Amino acid sequence: MKQAFHTVTVSTRGPGLYEFTDAVAEFVRGSGIADGLLTCFVRHTSASLLIQENADPDVQKDLQDFFAWLAKSGPRFRHTAEGPDDMPSHIRSALTQTSIGIPLQKSRLALGTWQGIYLFEHRDAPHQREVMLHVIGE
Amino acid sequence: MKQAFHTVTVSTRGPGLYEFTDAVAEFVRGSGIADGLLTCFVRHTSASLLIQENADPDVQKDLQDFFAWLAKSGPRFRHTAEGPDDMPSHIRSALTQTSIGIPLQKSRLALGTWQGIYLFEHRDAPHQREVMLHVIGE
Amino acid sequence: MKQAFHTVTVSTRGPGLYEFTDAVAEFVRGSGIADGLLTCFVRHTSASLLIQENADPDVQKDLQDFFAWLAKSGPRFRHTAEGPDDMPSHIRSALTQTSIGIPLQKSRLALGTWQGIYLFEHRDAPHQREVMLHVIGE
Repeated sequence: MKQAFHTVTVSTRGPGLYEFTDAVAEFVRGSGIADGLLTCFVRHTSASLLIQENADPDVQKDLQDFFAWLAKSGPRFRHTAEGPDDMPSHIRSALTQTSIGIPLQKSRLALGTWQGIYLFEHRDAPHQREVMLHVIGE
Repeated sequence: MKQAFHTVTVSTRGPGLYEFTDAVAEFVRGSGIADGLLTCFVRHTSASLLIQENADPDVQKDLQDFFAWLAKSGPRFRHTAEGPDDMPSHIRSALTQTSIGIPLQKSRLALGTWQGIYLFEHRDAPHQREVMLHVIGE
Repeated sequence: MKQAFHTVTVSTRGPGLYEFTDAVAEFVRGSGIADGLLTCFVRHTSASLLIQENADPDVQKDLQDFFAWLAKSGPRFRHTAEGPDDMPSHIRSALTQTSIGIPLQKSRLALGTWQGIYLFEHRDAPHQREVMLHVIGE
């Protein structure tokens, strides 16, 4: 049984979905592990993770619009010191994922045909987002 | 340390929750692993996973109604080529889970008394949904 | 490769976020595992898990208010036998997490600077909530 770790940095330029499936696949290949469990973990509370369709880019735009609408539809926020986009970002993160586990079998991630792995940026300003990858198996 | 994999296929007939706890329990029993971590991963972006109460079936109907309402309450969608139920399905998936990890101790999943594992179908048409199961432990 | 299990009990006094990061860190330290994967799993369907900002307590209050608002904004519920706060609790759970995986490297959880691990209580009455912790690694 073996393990490997790697940190992927995703550069963002405003809210929306940024795919990093290739970086995950490359890490898994390099790990020499063929069967096991991959975990992606985002080290932030105003950006999150999502597995979504990577065929039609309109899906990603519609997701961004929906979450922008939803996070601003509720009651007024107390936490505004870090800007008007900060508390909606925490809400969008809470509604999506901080951590995703994906089985790995015969050197292939269990992702379906149309599934991509995305960093979901919620803040307006550009950010460098860290996603820690871990794989355990053999 | 050992591992096992299995794909469960859930046949769906329209939106709602389909329990498959028994299939997971059977896989775990057959794996010969008593202590470890089980992962369920759905290989689709218009169906998702949920752990929910399996006592009163009304809970499942109310969940279905809530998510149907929420996914259609936001802004108009760009992505409509695959039907009016497609983009709401992606949103419902983004709001729930693609992957769930459950500890396994002394041959028992950590599920609480009332917790069942569900495939949450979001599309109107019948589908065959694949959930990959993975267990690692000893 | 080793494993360890532990159940944390979180005492709640009404809806909101209860941090238990320290209990997780203590468990990991005591396990003697330096590199691996930690999983938190909540054994309930009307309380859930969330990783969120642990700096400004207003973030936690705003999250509580948002989810209280959202879960009550949809269609009327069928499932009311266990009280008016029960079905909104299932919805709030479905919108957040039952299970969270966190990589562990060199005896440190991958948590970012401002990330804390929270039990998100959704019911009005006080509860004792069980979170099962599992770590696998070496």
